Amino acid sequence: MSETPAEQTKTEPVQAGEVARPPPLRLHRGISVLDLVLRIVAVAGTLASSIAMATTNQTLPFITQNFQFRAEYNDLPAFTFFVITNSIVCGYLVFSLPLSIFHIIKSAAKKSRIVLLTFDAAMLALVTAGASAAAATVYLAHKGNVNANWPAVCQQFDLFCERTSGSLIGSFGSAIMLILIISTSAVAISLL
Amino acid sequence: MSETPAEQTKTEPVQAGEVARPPPLRLHRGISVLDLVLRIVAVAGTLASSIAMATTNQTLPFITQNFQFRAEYNDLPAFTFFVITNSIVCGYLVFSLPLSIFHIIKSAAKKSRIVLLTFDAAMLALVTAGASAAAATVYLAHKGNVNANWPAVCQQFDLFCERTSGSLIGSFGSAIMLILIISTSAVAISLL
Repeated sequence: MSETPAEQTKTEPVQAGEVARPPPLRLHRGISVLDLVLRIVAVAGTLASSIAMATTNQTLPFITQNFQFRAEYNDLPAFTFFVITNSIVCGYLVFSLPLSIFHIIKSAAKKSRIVLLTFDAAMLALVTAGASAAAATVYLAHKGNVNANWPAVCQQFDLFCERTSGSLIGSFGSAIMLILIISTSAVAISLL
Repeated sequence: MSETPAEQTKTEPVQAGEVARPPPLRLHRGISVLDLVLRIVAVAGTLASSIAMATTNQTLPFITQNFQFRAEYNDLPAFTFFVITNSIVCGYLVFSLPLSIFHIIKSAAKKSRIVLLTFDAAMLALVTAGASAAAATVYLAHKGNVNANWPAVCQQFDLFCERTSGSLIGSFGSAIMLILIISTSAVAISLL
């Protein structure tokens, strides 16, 4: 029984609250940085979609008695909904950026990650809803529907239709980014 | 220095791989059961929506020259998309049930939970897309749109419109369930 004081301190019992294993910090930080990058891409996507849709309009060069001469996004409720949802999600994502940066610095923040993941899921639903409603309307504008007696309007408003169709890309892209963000958040939480 | 052998075993150093804290098993199992219940509710919602939309049709009692006499879900592409997406999500959720039960029995399954959470997020996007596209079309059927020269068709097909509107409820309900499932999964992963 020739224990030295140095050995005694080494074998001190681990406290109940403390965890013995160190978290794989480097991997964890990498995932947090990826989360931030994905968020920035999603911000760009929703912002571009919002602006592209909100600023589009087309005035036809001719005038007939029973047809609209000018098309704007707020002529169709689905497009208005698209602009609103994309703006909300864009705003949310911008506000989530500081928290994302905080997660890079302070890796052990568990609760805030779960809260963020839940909001991310809700925002995924919101941005998909907006994009999908607009897509359904764009489809009807392109093809029309004989059963419902709805004519296609894209022959007249070709530029308007092109621009609104294009603005969907950013929104659907952001939805995919949000799925990836949710997935990486889950991995980050599992590593804690 | 009068250490007994009993004290020596008590102060043995904790191995690097082993974790000192025991997982809160009871809470964890409760969350897994909640996950299963939410999944069953979501299955019921998507199944009901799918069936309600797919079986709805209305034949008008009168015949005119330039109007459709019979309305079915596949007259409108958005409704067909709605039935397809709800069927896919319903099928996925049914297949996820055994895995959910497995998680109740074997709480420590971490990787399978992350994979499931990622698929849940993708399915959330899918079911929301279907519901939202159908909602945009139902809205147009109810209100029409003067700017696009689309008449409202719900005056004629009142029962068809009522039924399709009603079938959206189950689908949006399932989307909310999926958000809750994602949130509880994140909590479950954090407890591991």
